[in-house]
This record gives sequence, C-alpha cells and structure tokens, in this order.
Amino acid sequence: MIILGIDPGTALCGYGLIEAKGNRLYPLAYGAIRTKAHSPMPSRLLTIAEELDNIIKQYKPHHVAVEEIFFSRNVTTALAVGQARGVILLSAARAGLAVSEYKPTQVKQAVVGYGRAEKEQVQEMVRILLSLSEKPKPDDVADALAVAICCAHSVHQEEWSR
Amino acid sequence: MIILGIDPGTALCGYGLIEAKGNRLYPLAYGAIRTKAHSPMPSRLLTIAEELDNIIKQYKPHHVAVEEIFFSRNVTTALAVGQARGVILLSAARAGLAVSEYKPTQVKQAVVGYGRAEKEQVQEMVRILLSLSEKPKPDDVADALAVAICCAHSVHQEEWSR
Repeated sequence: MIILGIDPGTALCGYGLIEAKGNRLYPLAYGAIRTKAHSPMPSRLLTIAEELDNIIKQYKPHHVAVEEIFFSRNVTTALAVGQARGVILLSAARAGLAVSEYKPTQVKQAVVGYGRAEKEQVQEMVRILLSLSEKPKPDDVADALAVAICCAHSVHQEEWSR
Repeated sequence: MIILGIDPGTALCGYGLIEAKGNRLYPLAYGAIRTKAHSPMPSRLLTIAEELDNIIKQYKPHHVAVEEIFFSRNVTTALAVGQARGVILLSAARAGLAVSEYKPTQVKQAVVGYGRAEKEQVQEMVRILLSLSEKPKPDDVADALAVAICCAHSVHQEEWSR
C-alpha cells in the first residue's frame, strides 16, 4: 500500500510517499512543492495542484494523509493554509483517493509512541523508521512523512482488528 | 465584459454573473452552489470545483471577483472558508482568468457609494443596479453579485483613466 502524506502551505507544501509492506515501511519519494512569494495566489495554488497531480500520477498512492489543523496561530495564517489545503483535498478527490486526517497527537503517538513528543523526536523517529541516513529537511517534509507513517499504522491496525 | 463574482463557503458558495456594456450592467445568472453537510470535505470541494468549472465553461467570464476576507470570526471558520476559496482561485487560474480581490469597504463604496453601508442597503442597491424584481436570496448570492458590480466599476474606471 502506497501512502502520500502532505503538510499543506501556500509557500511550501511538504510531501512524502511511503510504501507499507507487511510490518515494514519504505520511503519512495519526498520533497517540497515551493511557490513564488510574489506570485498572485491563484497561480501559486495552480503550481501546487499541478505538481501534486503529477506526483499522484507518477506514484499512484492508495491513500492521502493530512494533519488536522489546530491553530494557535492567527486567522490570516489559517486562511492561507486553508487555501492550500482545499487545493490538496480537491486533487485527492479528483483522483478518487481516500483522504485520512490525523490530529497532531495521533501522529506523534504513531511515530514516537508518545502524543506529546517534541518535534525533534518525531523527525528522528521518521529517519529511523524509514532507514534514512539523514533527517528529511525542511521540517515540512519530515512532517509529511510522519503523517504518512501515522496513516500506515492506522490502516495496518484496522486490518489486524478485523 | 462578463464578470463572475463569488462569495466562498464550503456549505454554500454564492455566485453571480453580470455583463457590463458601456455604463450599464445586466444580470446573466446567479445562484448558490450547495454541498451536503455530512459529506467528507474532499467531496464537498469537488462539488464546488465541478459546478464552478461548468459555470465558467457556460458563461465564459473575463474576470473573476472575490471579496478579501477580514475575519472577526474564529480560526475554524477561516480554515473552512480558506479551503473553498483555494478551490475557487484554482478554477479561475486553470481557466486562465484574471482574479480581482476587493475589500468589503470597496464593495460597499462601489455599490452604495458609502464604505460603511449596511448589508440591507447593499442588497437593495444590487437589486436596483441590476433591475431585478426582488433581492437575490440567500445573502451569499447578493454578496456575490455585489463584488461583481464592484469589479465592473473598478475595471470601467481604469479604462476611463487611461
């Protein structure tokens, strides 16, 4: 099963593709979709949609996983992230993919085993679980891989509990 | 020149198409795109995108106009409206259309001639300017027509000032 995890943003969207085979997880591809700060918002969103559509076409994921957002930050940020998120959910829906959303505490629990783990711990566990030589950078990419890992665990548990 | 005004929302998206000929404005079509409250967000966003794409194909607007959002409301609302807005801006960008954003005070100034006009006054002026027999309902549809009227005035003024 191939899972695409995404950390949405208008300036930078982290993505991470992993394959779950039995108990093991393999990294397929990860990186960031970047848009130009001075471009108009519609064309920035178009960049995100087109790159994401290409990633979906190339890797044919079965699931898309995104983090639920709880903002302690301001309303302007929520609106901007919301716009990027809308475009991402639309790409998934157009491709007929299942979308799962996970709370930050669920992601930390799945990756580190502790729902209040620090960002650094999550990144280090992402590196270990996917047998990567270095932590993926920037943080948004590690976050995207973390939510993909959380989705893999969650789907795996559902299959076991049947 | 044909203008498509939109008032974004995930449950209900108001839209209004007007044609500007010389000094006069003509209503072409207006209404609301509604999505089911209990559907998953990706499929609600897909409904909005597909209906909007059909409207753009059918009426071939030259401009898309949306209101800039200043939230006094909460962050959850901003995130939801942001998601709908992202999908709308993407549809416009995919169709190669110019998108203009207007502040609420600009819309009121253009429609009523007074930047702090009441909602009721804006709706009544929309009705008069477009020679409609009744105020368009719900409010979101009147708001979509108001931002389209604002865009028509703004483009008209730019042409005069050349």
